[in-house]
Amino acid sequence: MAERIDDLQRKGFKIIQDDEMFCFGTDAVLLCHFARLKPGDRVVDLGCGNGVIGLLLCSLYDNINVTGLEIQPKAAELAKRNISLNGIEDRMTAVLGDISRISDYFPIGEADVVITNPPYMKVQGSLKNESEEKRLARHEILCSLNDVVKAAAYLLKFGGRFFMVHKPERLTEIFEAMKSCGIEPKRLRLVQANSKKEPSMALIEGAKGGKPGLRVMPALVISGDDGKLNNEYERIYNSSETVLI
Amino acid sequence: MAERIDDLQRKGFKIIQDDEMFCFGTDAVLLCHFARLKPGDRVVDLGCGNGVIGLLLCSLYDNINVTGLEIQPKAAELAKRNISLNGIEDRMTAVLGDISRISDYFPIGEADVVITNPPYMKVQGSLKNESEEKRLARHEILCSLNDVVKAAAYLLKFGGRFFMVHKPERLTEIFEAMKSCGIEPKRLRLVQANSKKEPSMALIEGAKGGKPGLRVMPALVISGDDGKLNNEYERIYNSSETVLI
Repeated sequence: MAERIDDLQRKGFKIIQDDEMFCFGTDAVLLCHFARLKPGDRVVDLGCGNGVIGLLLCSLYDNINVTGLEIQPKAAELAKRNISLNGIEDRMTAVLGDISRISDYFPIGEADVVITNPPYMKVQGSLKNESEEKRLARHEILCSLNDVVKAAAYLLKFGGRFFMVHKPERLTEIFEAMKSCGIEPKRLRLVQANSKKEPSMALIEGAKGGKPGLRVMPALVISGDDGKLNNEYERIYNSSETVLI
Repeated sequence: MAERIDDLQRKGFKIIQDDEMFCFGTDAVLLCHFARLKPGDRVVDLGCGNGVIGLLLCSLYDNINVTGLEIQPKAAELAKRNISLNGIEDRMTAVLGDISRISDYFPIGEADVVITNPPYMKVQGSLKNESEEKRLARHEILCSLNDVVKAAAYLLKFGGRFFMVHKPERLTEIFEAMKSCGIEPKRLRLVQANSKKEPSMALIEGAKGGKPGLRVMPALVISGDDGKLNNEYERIYNSSETVLI
């Protein structure tokens, strides 16, 4: 155990993280600012880990309800402790469970929003010095891309929205998985470190039962050619507003 | 008829265009610089119009063979005249014919490369003041996206490459059409007018029988925030090298 408490820099929200487990990164933060929630939305976070996405969303929106599903007992336990730490038991819940058995935990079609920062990597090629917890969080060992998208399709009501962050190289598989489950890709934003670098992240929005037609946004380029941080990116970290990207 | 002869600014290549018909734009030029050809490649240009893509490719590569297929008699005639005008009858041919009857004109699996700048728009919503020729070149009236991709899959040998320019909003349909025909999307480059604008163009490379895995390149942003033209873009138009993007 190598626990620490980090400040989420939003309305006093804090998060307990464990260095031996998956700790949140820019992807989770950008995903929360890419998502568009409405008051009263029932949100499910698939593979919630220590609960960072739910915490961030609750810091951005007052009147939402988030349930995180997590298969790793230690991470789910951490998510529960993070909910208590922030006193948001009325708005957020963590459930220990397996995405591929989604119907054991949730009724069909009741979610307004499904959000997920799933394992990015196929099973081959994991790093040897990773802890077991990190390995499971990063690789498609306990759930595949298809499992995640299928669970989202089960959870979402008609017209419900799906938000995912993933690797650009998986984009064709992602679109295929979404379309095959009736979640139409509606918006894409790629994230690049600078103007010369290939994008390292894809932020994807889908709509259950949506019509074809993808809005591709301008790439979010984190550092300008002058070395300065992009204005949108900077505001995400240094502003108290709800910055949407 | 409102014919004019334009200089292609490459090795003395010229092109006859007709203002009442489809005239080439940045999309055809960028597509040719996005494509990667090898000496000896047999190339088919689906929907070649006045032949601009074949002319540009022949100006960029010496040792290739291009056949353009075009359904509109006037445009196919113009392509033939452009071939003669540039004296490249030994390297380029134009064929009048219908993409949906591809096997009437070509044997299966003999192309190394298929390249195409197809109609971008679905049938609804065409502009009333367009000429019939422009309307047919821009809208999916005589061929759909699926027809184009199917014809490409028929033409390509195993491992053969497919290059297409299209609209970003059709990306999910494009990937779906390609995958369903066994052409795996392998590389994507989006083109934006500037850093704030949504991309207006998607350059797509596929490989017949390729493995999943998409390389997404950094967006090609034509004008920098300082108003200067992007260096890559500038070199395409003002350099005698074969600039690849």
